[in-house]
Amino acid sequence: MRNDKINNIEADLLVSGDFVLTFNEDKEIVENGAVAVAGDGIVAVGNSSDLVKEIEAKEELDASGCLIMPGLINLHTHAAMTCFRGLADDLPYQEWLHEYIFPTEEHHVSEETVYWGTMLAVVEMIKSGTTTFCDGYFYEDGAARAVTASGIRAVLGQGVIDFPAPGVPDPRINLKAAEAFVFRWQGKSPRLVPSIFCHSPYTCSPETLIGAKDICRQHGIYFQIHLAETMNEVEEVQKRYGRRSVDHLRILGLLDEETLCHHAVWVTGEEVEVLEKNGVGVSHNPESNMKLASGVAPLPKMLAAGVKVGLGTDGCASNNNLDMFQEMDTAAKLHKVHWGDTTLCSAVQVAEMATNGGAAALGLSQVLGSLEPGKKADLIVIDLNQPHLTPMYEPCSHLVYAARGADVRDVVIDGSIVMRERQLLEIDEQEVMVKVREIAAAIRQAHSAERRASKNPKYDKIR
Amino acid sequence: MRNDKINNIEADLLVSGDFVLTFNEDKEIVENGAVAVAGDGIVAVGNSSDLVKEIEAKEELDASGCLIMPGLINLHTHAAMTCFRGLADDLPYQEWLHEYIFPTEEHHVSEETVYWGTMLAVVEMIKSGTTTFCDGYFYEDGAARAVTASGIRAVLGQGVIDFPAPGVPDPRINLKAAEAFVFRWQGKSPRLVPSIFCHSPYTCSPETLIGAKDICRQHGIYFQIHLAETMNEVEEVQKRYGRRSVDHLRILGLLDEETLCHHAVWVTGEEVEVLEKNGVGVSHNPESNMKLASGVAPLPKMLAAGVKVGLGTDGCASNNNLDMFQEMDTAAKLHKVHWGDTTLCSAVQVAEMATNGGAAALGLSQVLGSLEPGKKADLIVIDLNQPHLTPMYEPCSHLVYAARGADVRDVVIDGSIVMRERQLLEIDEQEVMVKVREIAAAIRQAHSAERRASKNPKYDKIR
Repeated sequence: MRNDKINNIEADLLVSGDFVLTFNEDKEIVENGAVAVAGDGIVAVGNSSDLVKEIEAKEELDASGCLIMPGLINLHTHAAMTCFRGLADDLPYQEWLHEYIFPTEEHHVSEETVYWGTMLAVVEMIKSGTTTFCDGYFYEDGAARAVTASGIRAVLGQGVIDFPAPGVPDPRINLKAAEAFVFRWQGKSPRLVPSIFCHSPYTCSPETLIGAKDICRQHGIYFQIHLAETMNEVEEVQKRYGRRSVDHLRILGLLDEETLCHHAVWVTGEEVEVLEKNGVGVSHNPESNMKLASGVAPLPKMLAAGVKVGLGTDGCASNNNLDMFQEMDTAAKLHKVHWGDTTLCSAVQVAEMATNGGAAALGLSQVLGSLEPGKKADLIVIDLNQPHLTPMYEPCSHLVYAARGADVRDVVIDGSIVMRERQLLEIDEQEVMVKVREIAAAIRQAHSAERRASKNPKYDKIR
Repeated sequence: MRNDKINNIEADLLVSGDFVLTFNEDKEIVENGAVAVAGDGIVAVGNSSDLVKEIEAKEELDASGCLIMPGLINLHTHAAMTCFRGLADDLPYQEWLHEYIFPTEEHHVSEETVYWGTMLAVVEMIKSGTTTFCDGYFYEDGAARAVTASGIRAVLGQGVIDFPAPGVPDPRINLKAAEAFVFRWQGKSPRLVPSIFCHSPYTCSPETLIGAKDICRQHGIYFQIHLAETMNEVEEVQKRYGRRSVDHLRILGLLDEETLCHHAVWVTGEEVEVLEKNGVGVSHNPESNMKLASGVAPLPKMLAAGVKVGLGTDGCASNNNLDMFQEMDTAAKLHKVHWGDTTLCSAVQVAEMATNGGAAALGLSQVLGSLEPGKKADLIVIDLNQPHLTPMYEPCSHLVYAARGADVRDVVIDGSIVMRERQLLEIDEQEVMVKVREIAAAIRQAHSAERRASKNPKYDKIR
């Protein structure tokens, strides 16, 4: 463990517990370890008794009986869609999207709903150990306000689609709206990085995609897109442009180190090589892909090829929670059974994806993903004194196969304690839930009205 | 809702909350509902304000902001294997079983470890909403002692295998040992039903299988067996007996309404019909099947054919937790992606499997699986006032796709409150964890010694 100039460091916070899982290059695990934080960064990681001697800390967080690890990075979500949690399950994909999700978005999404929906997502994510999330949605200013108010870290992508969309009724100005979002938020908070999120290669024209990527390049920000999520998408792109989705983006010049593709389910071995060669980041979202029957992404191939892959939950309309521990468990198990090999996607590999993998895919490896001096102080404390985490032979096994979001006791983001003993310090959790219940009541009421008015109700499954 | 003779009932306990999910035949959901309990049974279910008027209850459990539902039934586990939680992950199946699990069982399993391992499982299960579990292991007296001491309900199968086994070093007496177990425990506790668990058609001879089923018939108890869990098993049975696993059991006369088969992964459409026609119960254990890459069971076919299918977690060596909420989520999602149909295994179907389905597979439909007058009072209270359960459009969707074990607030089994506000009332949870940590320390030490002594260490992955 390198801790430069460890002697007589002044620190703001010292967190010490039974194990520190550093997720550094050597995957070091420090028993009876501690992490020292000054300002927003980590200044030392090491043995507790050593650090206590050498470091003067203003505040101590006693994590006895606990494990300390980097905060999780949720690489793909649409946070505000917590408002639609459980609104429409077990339906055919096209019906789910076009008869439930899109119409509900059309009538019920405003900057205000995005603010409260994102706040609810942030509450849920912090309470289940996520310290950074990568988002894409409309009215993304609402999400940005929620991020700045809440203490979480995020990459936020304003949505771009060639149809009338919430907040952007005229698609001809969708790129202008996205660029205005970037102007408004770039550099405004150390925890917020703006981005542009093009919906997909079949809902955005080549001109829109190229225009969006140009704006991203001008501002030095990330371009996000849903890529090869469903077989239908790939077939549609093939029909329209005479090439598959990955090739389409490659030929348009969109694949580079500042592009993040979500899903990448229907990609061939050759396409995996293309993604790797171009340094593209990929989010793997197994629970959403399962629930929507989209398919199983070639994750083992992507990992073997060295693609920068992280893990995501996707939005609450297709999961229906944002628990990255459950997502890790599913990722590790799904590929074993799908490819018929128990050794694939080991606990260590999957935990890497949820930390360093996400950081790399976002180009943030220098500051996030592991507990090392010089990185941002984003860490979580997991309470090991619980029946389902007893006994413990291997910490990483427990993170992936046994733990769940509710085991996270404390959360530090950007050097600040944002949750202590499962109590959020920056957010009024009850107020957030009340506000989202009001939004849901309006959605429910509108659906009831539609059901009464229409002979062909779209929402007859909703109570 | 039929509540015979509802007027002026005396009850021991009245549980009232925002929703009662009855899981009765009409799948009734009572808003602002209550369940009245007298002794070990349910005497009324209905609207809270009605029941409060008509029922004099000695004790009230206020579940405002909560959902009340039947306790979950974990149809397949090896409870004591909590001791091996995370001992050996991500290994080839044969190596996992023959180089890690079997040798560890040989050296470390005693009645005492089974007692404490089962106690830990019981703690974990109650804390995640399971009120009945169906078990199979060796030294099953240890499990029976844990069940009687803890307040949970269980069907416990003494393990039978044609090899030297923990507690039964001479396989020639394995049936005698099993029958003695049945004698010792039948009728001893209203919450405990003994059973015999033959390991599998490839580790038990036809004579052993027939002998075990005969004992079961004599005592009116259930015969359990792992069936068609892996392709290897089916091939091995085919090689040895010239027929596939299901046909092998059918021809031996083992398939009837008091036989419970675990896994049933490698069964054909015709074999599904055979299971249904013979009234055999089946446990579906998706997370274990995924982690061990055993395969994907034809659950949609089994449900369509009307097979009595319930849900199980399997043991902690292959899952690695006993959380039935997570298992429901996985079951609902796995089949959608595997069979390419988002409408398969709906939330309602899967929640049915975890309640009524398990009861039917165990022949206990008359007393378990739903909240109805005349049934046993086994119920759980789920705290809805949580970010990941907000908002709520459909309760069943939340149970399967959003909730997790930690959301269970209170548990009633056999009419007694065994957990209140997440505090166990009958068990010293800390003591149980301390004891299992001691067992794990011995296992870890033995593995270290073996690693030092052997040039070909079996346990070199264990710290």
